[in-house]
Amino acid sequence: MLDQIRIVLVNTTHSGNIGAAARAMKNMGVTQLVLVDPIAEIDGDAIVRASGASEILDSCVTVASLDEAVAGCGLVIGTSARGRHIPWPLCSPRECADKAKTAVANNNSVALVFGRESRGLTNEELHKCNAHVHIPTNPDFSSLNIAAAVQVLCYEMRLASLEEAVSSNNTWGVEWDYELAPHGDMERFFDHLKDSLVDIGFLDPNTPKQLMTRLRRMFQRTALDTMEVSMMRGILAAVQRKAVLANESEADSAANPQVDDKTDSK
Amino acid sequence: MLDQIRIVLVNTTHSGNIGAAARAMKNMGVTQLVLVDPIAEIDGDAIVRASGASEILDSCVTVASLDEAVAGCGLVIGTSARGRHIPWPLCSPRECADKAKTAVANNNSVALVFGRESRGLTNEELHKCNAHVHIPTNPDFSSLNIAAAVQVLCYEMRLASLEEAVSSNNTWGVEWDYELAPHGDMERFFDHLKDSLVDIGFLDPNTPKQLMTRLRRMFQRTALDTMEVSMMRGILAAVQRKAVLANESEADSAANPQVDDKTDSK
Repeated sequence: MLDQIRIVLVNTTHSGNIGAAARAMKNMGVTQLVLVDPIAEIDGDAIVRASGASEILDSCVTVASLDEAVAGCGLVIGTSARGRHIPWPLCSPRECADKAKTAVANNNSVALVFGRESRGLTNEELHKCNAHVHIPTNPDFSSLNIAAAVQVLCYEMRLASLEEAVSSNNTWGVEWDYELAPHGDMERFFDHLKDSLVDIGFLDPNTPKQLMTRLRRMFQRTALDTMEVSMMRGILAAVQRKAVLANESEADSAANPQVDDKTDSK
Repeated sequence: MLDQIRIVLVNTTHSGNIGAAARAMKNMGVTQLVLVDPIAEIDGDAIVRASGASEILDSCVTVASLDEAVAGCGLVIGTSARGRHIPWPLCSPRECADKAKTAVANNNSVALVFGRESRGLTNEELHKCNAHVHIPTNPDFSSLNIAAAVQVLCYEMRLASLEEAVSSNNTWGVEWDYELAPHGDMERFFDHLKDSLVDIGFLDPNTPKQLMTRLRRMFQRTALDTMEVSMMRGILAAVQRKAVLANESEADSAANPQVDDKTDSK
């Protein structure tokens, strides 16, 4: 299981934290580290704090965006300290490990995403996640060091991996017929959904409000499988075909109000 | 419970580790720190790493021996990485938290003892403990940073302390903003969805196959809230408006095939 867990650190400011996170990972048997646009470089301080886990620093991957970091992952879980305006599915570290174990048993990769030291993940980043995990902290002093947060979640991942191999149940407690859709497919689906909603005049791109956020939350907490995503894409394509025809027809009507007496050839 | 837990650090070498341990403690609501004959002083590095938990450093107690540190404790648990010649009662962090909880419920204080960065606790020190706790680590890289070990054990202590009060969480582990849609609303939504799919030509009512079954499974396992159902109904209504226009336009084209220079009547 642990070889399918990816630790993603976003915009990390202190190199020592990257090193300490690498050590925490290796202690727990987690090896894949991805840095999203890090502010800090991997310097001597990182190597000292990694304390023997420097091969995780050597093999870590640096990417420019969160989308790249979680590409191909069937389950993306973001760490969140704050309450949000729109609530998102929230799990404890232990529940998070159960979800991850189930996802891996069904051939999915899993990403755990950690935000900036100063202010965590942005709402936009959190909305790319299937669920959020909250480490229960003292309400009066809730901000964990990022390496400490990595430690707690990797510890729970290790415990889950050591439990007896559960039957290949997935999230839904039964053997499923298709794999979970990887992150990139979901993002393309959301782009397609948004375009379609604009085409049918339901979404005004200038005043989008919370529509896409709510739709993201709805579809992401479901954890769509690959078959469902292609089915939804097929429906959207059919919607768009009708919308194109309808919009042409409306444009015609607007240009030629006397619709029922067509005299022009167009 | 947490106010009866004492964290004891023996012969700590790096002041930054003392600070990071204090932060981990405060994050989890544990406040009593005892240093046994520390090598490091509480210096600027300790205060930086404590990052707001410096009152734990201010109130920490320094003593000369482990015996003084654990005086009065009904339960003393030592952290141990290595196998020992003489087996000692050994527990996991979770079992350790259960033991601590039971002890505190019976009016005992509890000490968790952490050894030196370089070589942990001596056998003599370990033999002063009621039990040992082993954090399950990667056998190839088993030495946790001391603050990381404090973090894991305090996290388990906090979880145990929170168990008593189970919250009234809903399906998604967080207080939600709308109620779940009642069954009747879901059935009306599915009827509306089916009609819309017929209107856009995606569903042939004569050969429906498994399409509606898969859509039902997808939306029902999501447990839509009332807001999401009305949002989806709004989208379907917009789709249907476009479909009506498009279908009229297609019917017109079929009735007047000479639009694009078509010569056959089909």
